[in-house]
Amino acid sequence: MTDFSKGAAWMRGDIVPIEQATIGVTDWGVTHSDVTYDVVPVWNGGFFRLSDYLERFMASMAAARMDTGMTPATIKAALHDMVARAGLRHAYVAMVAARGTPVIPGSRDPRDCANHFYAWCVPYIHVVRPEQADDGVAVRLSDTTHRIPPTSVDPLIKNYHWGDFTAGLFEAKDAGFETVLLPDHTGHVTEGPGFNVFALTGNRIVTPRDGVLHGITRKTVIEMARAEGHDVSEEPLSATALLKADEVFLSTSGGGVIPVARLNDRHVSNGAAGPVARKLRARYFELLDDPAYRTDIRFEAPS
Amino acid sequence: MTDFSKGAAWMRGDIVPIEQATIGVTDWGVTHSDVTYDVVPVWNGGFFRLSDYLERFMASMAAARMDTGMTPATIKAALHDMVARAGLRHAYVAMVAARGTPVIPGSRDPRDCANHFYAWCVPYIHVVRPEQADDGVAVRLSDTTHRIPPTSVDPLIKNYHWGDFTAGLFEAKDAGFETVLLPDHTGHVTEGPGFNVFALTGNRIVTPRDGVLHGITRKTVIEMARAEGHDVSEEPLSATALLKADEVFLSTSGGGVIPVARLNDRHVSNGAAGPVARKLRARYFELLDDPAYRTDIRFEAPS
Repeated sequence: MTDFSKGAAWMRGDIVPIEQATIGVTDWGVTHSDVTYDVVPVWNGGFFRLSDYLERFMASMAAARMDTGMTPATIKAALHDMVARAGLRHAYVAMVAARGTPVIPGSRDPRDCANHFYAWCVPYIHVVRPEQADDGVAVRLSDTTHRIPPTSVDPLIKNYHWGDFTAGLFEAKDAGFETVLLPDHTGHVTEGPGFNVFALTGNRIVTPRDGVLHGITRKTVIEMARAEGHDVSEEPLSATALLKADEVFLSTSGGGVIPVARLNDRHVSNGAAGPVARKLRARYFELLDDPAYRTDIRFEAPS
Repeated sequence: MTDFSKGAAWMRGDIVPIEQATIGVTDWGVTHSDVTYDVVPVWNGGFFRLSDYLERFMASMAAARMDTGMTPATIKAALHDMVARAGLRHAYVAMVAARGTPVIPGSRDPRDCANHFYAWCVPYIHVVRPEQADDGVAVRLSDTTHRIPPTSVDPLIKNYHWGDFTAGLFEAKDAGFETVLLPDHTGHVTEGPGFNVFALTGNRIVTPRDGVLHGITRKTVIEMARAEGHDVSEEPLSATALLKADEVFLSTSGGGVIPVARLNDRHVSNGAAGPVARKLRARYFELLDDPAYRTDIRFEAPS
């Protein structure tokens, strides 16, 4: 029996243990971080909103001018077979398109590269540990590192350009915070490493519209909050407005809705998880099990 | 005999053909492009300014808070053995430090990662084909894509965040240009994919100081130009000043000094390689052979 306990990968049609999944060090996917990717959660043996994630991934590849020869149907089959083989009922599932290397030796033209697809899955990743997420996390709003602007790298094309997040994470961790939120160059809040952000004031919820990934979990939160009767708006969110909000919470496919209990030196919702954030957090985990959003995985019988 | 004709790599102490050199798909060096690197040229069987490149690489690792356990001496030995084994007398030699993966399962803290070092070499890479460089190249100064700002990702820590360069290269190639120069958000010129830029007006040469890598070839050009009696200044360079310059040229360890013959719709130095740029280009190739700057490689005798 192959050991898939740490995860599996789909590499050129083969399903291999995650430890064997590698990419060449000269691939422009590495040397130029010329990659777009997406991540779909698997919960209780089913993909969540798989068609939404696939649609965004196809749009990202088109915008990045990559053609790996894969279609939504062949990607879906690859992801399904990989997770089924790995036997992971709660998983973080990544699909990746990389620029590859030039087919014309010596070319420095991205149009000359052989793009390629691969996928991998590991046991479900929590961006914030669940116990901490339940209690509300401490977040640092950086005052030194800015999010990479959209005119440099388009955040709508999900990408591995995390240098700003990494710098912000070091600052946050050193100062005793769990994670970081980055502002843009005009003092507006953007996003953090792997998540979007929401600010609740009264009945109104604001989440940044520009300079951020339009997360599928973000979309789910907007839908859930509207169903609960909240007025939700995608618009610029100033650091000042964020710091004054009644509640602040994060959204990520790696853990759902995460209440924020502290922002810099300020307690949010009395230093605990706020009631609206807690309700949305619980509702998100219910939705993960809702047949309307699920694509069940046919796991192989243990032999 | 192992075939090293396409290059070689130093991976965990082993020297392998470049085709076998890979990095794990879950390494933060890939998924967060959390890498710093450097590239030293090998010319006629010798490293050029090796101690300068090593010094910058060590500074980059320290600034990125990476410790791979390697020292300048062990890196130097690794690079030497790798190139000697590969038998490449003209080579592009990369040394890379990657964040690795967390040693604490589930951690999202960059301080918990096991950093690692690897190196690789391939036959010498010309950023611009030599024939074209001799004649002067056509460069697009982008008006749509901006260089990632230093407050997002520090360009002094040489990195693989090339999304802005890739977007700019697509625009440039589509419009018939060889390569691209990116402005910053204030309309000042920064750098291009793999090179710095210089503008000559009269006897005065300006190269951008901020928001750019301080290239070793850039340093070499500054030294050569001063030795030729030019007044060289590192200062902000506006797009307007660049477009009005008598001569424009690029500097890179992948081809030395590259004269620019066309910038957008404007001919530079009458649409040919300018005389100062040609002189510096020739002088650079002389310096590559100068014993004062060289570290000779003891190649293994062919068996």
